[in-house]
Amino acid sequence: MTAPISAGHAALLASFREGRVASLARAVSIVENHRPGFEALLAEFHAGIGRARRYGITGPPGAGKSTLTTALTRAFRAQGLTVGIVAVDPTSPFTGGALLGDRIRMESVALDPGVFIRSMATRGSLGGLATATREACDVLDAFGVDRILIETVGVGQSELDISRTADCTLVVLVPESGDSIQTLKAGLMEIADVFVVNKADRPGADRLRNELELMLGLRSGATMKNVPAHHGVDLKHVNPIRAAREAASDPAPMKWTPPVLRSVAIKDDGIDEVIGALDRHFEYLERTGTLRDRRRRRLRERVVDVVESRVRTRLWQDDETARWLDGQLPGLESGATTPFAVADALLARSGEQLTRTSL
Amino acid sequence: MTAPISAGHAALLASFREGRVASLARAVSIVENHRPGFEALLAEFHAGIGRARRYGITGPPGAGKSTLTTALTRAFRAQGLTVGIVAVDPTSPFTGGALLGDRIRMESVALDPGVFIRSMATRGSLGGLATATREACDVLDAFGVDRILIETVGVGQSELDISRTADCTLVVLVPESGDSIQTLKAGLMEIADVFVVNKADRPGADRLRNELELMLGLRSGATMKNVPAHHGVDLKHVNPIRAAREAASDPAPMKWTPPVLRSVAIKDDGIDEVIGALDRHFEYLERTGTLRDRRRRRLRERVVDVVESRVRTRLWQDDETARWLDGQLPGLESGATTPFAVADALLARSGEQLTRTSL
Repeated sequence: MTAPISAGHAALLASFREGRVASLARAVSIVENHRPGFEALLAEFHAGIGRARRYGITGPPGAGKSTLTTALTRAFRAQGLTVGIVAVDPTSPFTGGALLGDRIRMESVALDPGVFIRSMATRGSLGGLATATREACDVLDAFGVDRILIETVGVGQSELDISRTADCTLVVLVPESGDSIQTLKAGLMEIADVFVVNKADRPGADRLRNELELMLGLRSGATMKNVPAHHGVDLKHVNPIRAAREAASDPAPMKWTPPVLRSVAIKDDGIDEVIGALDRHFEYLERTGTLRDRRRRRLRERVVDVVESRVRTRLWQDDETARWLDGQLPGLESGATTPFAVADALLARSGEQLTRTSL
Repeated sequence: MTAPISAGHAALLASFREGRVASLARAVSIVENHRPGFEALLAEFHAGIGRARRYGITGPPGAGKSTLTTALTRAFRAQGLTVGIVAVDPTSPFTGGALLGDRIRMESVALDPGVFIRSMATRGSLGGLATATREACDVLDAFGVDRILIETVGVGQSELDISRTADCTLVVLVPESGDSIQTLKAGLMEIADVFVVNKADRPGADRLRNELELMLGLRSGATMKNVPAHHGVDLKHVNPIRAAREAASDPAPMKWTPPVLRSVAIKDDGIDEVIGALDRHFEYLERTGTLRDRRRRRLRERVVDVVESRVRTRLWQDDETARWLDGQLPGLESGATTPFAVADALLARSGEQLTRTSL
C-alpha cells in the first residue's frame, strides 16, 4: 500500500482538481524532486491520465526543435486546446549553452495561461531523466492538458526514451543534415512517426526530403515523384502506380509509413500540414488499436520503473546494508572475494527490505 | 556462488594467462555480450585487476579526442608500455557519422601488437554502456595491459561515467570552445584532472587557456601570467606570489589543481607535456591515498552494478512474473489500481527469485 495522502497534499489535490495553475506547478515540483508523499500524489492522479495526446519532438542540435515546438503550440492554442511543454535536456557540460539558447525562444508562448512549460534539466535526476519526464507528463495529463509536447535533443539515448514516452514521435531534420543522412542509423527509422524537414527554405531541403523518402521506400527513383509522401501507406517494395491506386482506394490503411513534411517553423510555414499529419497519425493509432498497445506498454514500463526505483531506494539508502558493504571492501581489494559473490550475499541478506510493503 | 567455470572457459583462461591476444579478444566478446559464464570469467579476472592505469578522455565532438588518444598511445608505446583503448560511443542516430570518422584515424596504431582497441558502440547494451565499459577495462587490466585509454564524447552523461571509471580524466577542448566557455557547467570542473587545449596552433588557443586558468583560480588577471599553470597546487583565493613560493618549496602538494596544457595532437606537439602531467597526477593519487579511495569507490559501484543487474534479470526475465504483470494491465488501464500498488505486490511476491543465490 502506498501511504495515504497527507492533509497538505489533500488540499493541493482539491485545488489541482479545480484546475488551479499554481497547484499544477506545485504538484510537478513535488513529483520532480521526489518529495515525501509524491507517490501518493501520483497514485491519486493515475486514474485521470490517458486523455492528453503526447508528442515527442527530437532531432540534432540546431534543427529548430524549440521553434517548431513553439509554432505547434500556437497552432494548438488557435484550436482552443491547452498545451504542456516538457523540455528535456540531457545535460552535457559541452552542449549546455546551445540548449539554453533554445529555451529563450519559447518565451513567445510562455505567458499564455493555456500553456505550461516545464524544463527537465536535472542531470542524474532521481530515477533518471526518462522517469522524471514520464511523471511530469502524467501530472500534466491528469491536470487536463490536451496536448503534451516533449522536446529533446537526440543524444545519448534520449530520443529512444522519448519515443517510448510519446504517442507519436516527430523527427526534425534540417537541410544541413543531408550530408550525413547515409549515416543516420536504423534507430532513427524505428522511432520516427513523422519526419519534418525544417528550415526548408534553405538549399538542400528537397534533396534531404528525397533521400528520406527513398530510405522509407516512399519513392524508388524518379518514377515515384508524384506519389503523395504523407499518405500513411507502406509502399515499400510495391509498384508505385499500383500503390498510389491502392492508397487512393483505401482511406484507412492498417500500416503507417512516416510522412516527410517541410516547414519553416520560424515563419509558421508548413505547420498546418504537420498538425494534419499528427491528427491522421492519431486517428491511425486509435483505429488500429496501436494507441492502446503503446499505452499498455507504457503502463508496464511504468511499473518496471517504480519497482526498480524501490529496489534502489531500499538497498542503497539502508544504513545497515551500506555498513555491511563497506566491510566487504578489503576482501574485494585483496581479491579474496569478487563483486559477484558480494552481490549474491547482499541480495540474500536484503530479502526483507526488498520485499516489504512500502509505508 | 557464481557458477564454476566451464571447461571451454577454463581453456580460454589458461590461454589468456599465457598472454595470447586471441584469447583477450574472445574474453572481451564473451563479457561484452553477457554470454553464459561471463560472470564466472570476470570473477576469475577479479584478483588480477588494479595494475593498469586508466585514463578517461572526453570533450566535445571535433576536439580531436581520437587524435590525442592515438598520440598518447604512440608515446606510451615508445616507453615500452602496452595500451588498451576503449572507445565509448553513446550512440546517437544524429551524431553517429562524426564519431565513425574518428575511429578511422586510430588505424595508425591499430596494427601494433601492443595496442588493443575495443569499440563500445552498442546502444542499450546489456546493463548499460557504463557497465560494459568497466567490464572491458577489467578484462584488459587482468590481461596485463599497462595503460587503458577510455575515450568518449561528452554528451548525455557519458563524461560523468568516464570520470567514475578512470583514475584520471582528461578534458580536451579546442580554441572554438572558447566562445562557450562561460556556459561550461560546474560539472566539467568536477570531472577534469587535466585540461588539454588541443589544436593549439589555431587562433584563440591562448585566450581559451587563460579563461580556463581563470576559472580554476590559477590566475587572477594579468599579474598571474607567470605562475606555472601545471603545478598541481590549489591556488584558489591565494596570493599569487606567495602561492608560487609555496609551490616551489612544496614538491609534494596534497591538493591537485588541474593543469591546462596545450597540444597539437595531429603533429605530436605537446604530447610529452601531457604524459608528464599524467605521471605527476598518478604520483599525486598514490601519495595522497586518493588512488586507493577512487579504486575502492569503483569496487563499491561495481557491486551495486552487479546487484542491480541481477535484480533486473531475476525479475524481468522470469516468465511467471511477466504473466502476472500482464494480468495487472487491465486494472492499470481502468484506473482500478496504480503502478505503485502493482509494484509493491510484485516485489512482495518475487522475494524468493530476488534473494536466491545465483546458479
